[in-house]
Amino acid sequence: MIKVAILGYGNIGRAAEEAVKAAPDMELAGIFHHNDCLDCIQADVVLLCTPTREVPTFAAILASKGICTVDSFDIHGQIVNLRSQLQPVCAAHQTVSVISAGWDPGSDSVVRALLMAMAPKGLTYTNFGPGRSMGHSVAAKAIDGVKNALSMTIPLGTGVHRRMVYIELEEGADFKTVEAAILADDYFAHDETHVIAVPDVDALNNVAHGVHLERSGVSGATHNQRFAFDMTINNPALTGQVMVSCARAAVRMRDRGEFGAKTMIEIRPIDMLPGKEESLIKALV
Amino acid sequence: MIKVAILGYGNIGRAAEEAVKAAPDMELAGIFHHNDCLDCIQADVVLLCTPTREVPTFAAILASKGICTVDSFDIHGQIVNLRSQLQPVCAAHQTVSVISAGWDPGSDSVVRALLMAMAPKGLTYTNFGPGRSMGHSVAAKAIDGVKNALSMTIPLGTGVHRRMVYIELEEGADFKTVEAAILADDYFAHDETHVIAVPDVDALNNVAHGVHLERSGVSGATHNQRFAFDMTINNPALTGQVMVSCARAAVRMRDRGEFGAKTMIEIRPIDMLPGKEESLIKALV
Repeated sequence: MIKVAILGYGNIGRAAEEAVKAAPDMELAGIFHHNDCLDCIQADVVLLCTPTREVPTFAAILASKGICTVDSFDIHGQIVNLRSQLQPVCAAHQTVSVISAGWDPGSDSVVRALLMAMAPKGLTYTNFGPGRSMGHSVAAKAIDGVKNALSMTIPLGTGVHRRMVYIELEEGADFKTVEAAILADDYFAHDETHVIAVPDVDALNNVAHGVHLERSGVSGATHNQRFAFDMTINNPALTGQVMVSCARAAVRMRDRGEFGAKTMIEIRPIDMLPGKEESLIKALV
Repeated sequence: MIKVAILGYGNIGRAAEEAVKAAPDMELAGIFHHNDCLDCIQADVVLLCTPTREVPTFAAILASKGICTVDSFDIHGQIVNLRSQLQPVCAAHQTVSVISAGWDPGSDSVVRALLMAMAPKGLTYTNFGPGRSMGHSVAAKAIDGVKNALSMTIPLGTGVHRRMVYIELEEGADFKTVEAAILADDYFAHDETHVIAVPDVDALNNVAHGVHLERSGVSGATHNQRFAFDMTINNPALTGQVMVSCARAAVRMRDRGEFGAKTMIEIRPIDMLPGKEESLIKALV
């Protein structure tokens, strides 16, 4: 049995706990909070379900203790840096850190890589939503006069998105002033954005999300090869499950001596699945 | 540069040639026919574009010379056997054979494995077509009174397919007799099948094909996670391209000492792509 601990117990931590409990080859080695003593953790692998900005620190500390980690670090521009910071730590302490293992970055990244292998020239568009953007919701909530906010990402195709921003105003705040501040914010200034005042933002809360990922490309010398990947999902449930599947892969890579920091496109798909190699090949190939 | 040779020069061999020529990191090391002397082949990797039944023999001969191979062996029930036959040969001669590297088995297998990692419980349906089934076309052509035949696979959903069989009759053959023989053939007896007489089967020739692969599953304890993968493609062009991308992965695995026979779910997606690791991660993750 793979011993899996969870660090951080928000939406993702709770979903990861359910996925660990549903896995036939794992046992839960404890749930820890950000400020718990990391020395207490006895596990093969720790799922880092903390806020994304805390991931680099926790991943490095745990890797330096020889413990595998999995995170869903989602700041796209900093993934390569995180990987190169963790690489020498993992190598020195003979462990594996799987990074950016959610659905985007994560499983979508695997689909993008696969489509690139199938049709090397062409364009891939990743269209997100409809679903809540955490980053945009937090940005809107930070505006003066906003008590609570929910920013929905609406896909318009070819990677262009509309932002539907639902806000609950502070008492006495002026809607037009708040709306102007949101539209001027760098998070919203580049997209079509609609601001809508509602009496209760919490009443709109829904963790549904989706993706429509499309590629038109060229295989060899043949153009017009068309591909699409679609999903409509519960966001934290999928993130937690992907992290758990990657925890299995982390331990297998560690056991084979393939130490290092790995993104999901550096993982063999079969390593994410429980069961015997030959049964999986028979069922899936 | 990776030296790639092609064995067999039908539809797939021609498409593979185009994909090798389009690859920035490969050079064509020759095109060989079934009855050429295999000792003449000087290459890192040979693409086996022969009829599928000849693949096991050629793969074993080349592996025993320490040459990597890639095939698109497509008899689903025999893939595990082929893998275990080639495994010891590859290990003994320090080489890699990538097997069943087309689109199904092949890239579809990778999608099925990924979806299983994302939602471990549930059902996946692979719906093929519309497109020509080579196996069914050959079976129809073998019936007495049939001069030429084209069997189209039409997806009806949940993995159920209709067969549209276009036949060109031999002179004097009776349509009703031929139709009854086709409907009774084991290839067609289990599916809804329509037989249509046409004056010229060759006039219908088209290598377009498609897939609609769908999964509804459970991530952790959360049901109703929905996924779909769709493509409409030129069949030999995609098969040739996937083989070429897997040839790159074969050589990389050989160079790292990961010898053996591998299906596509045992390959890291990044290994199929040309270019530097960090650039690929930046672009795709």
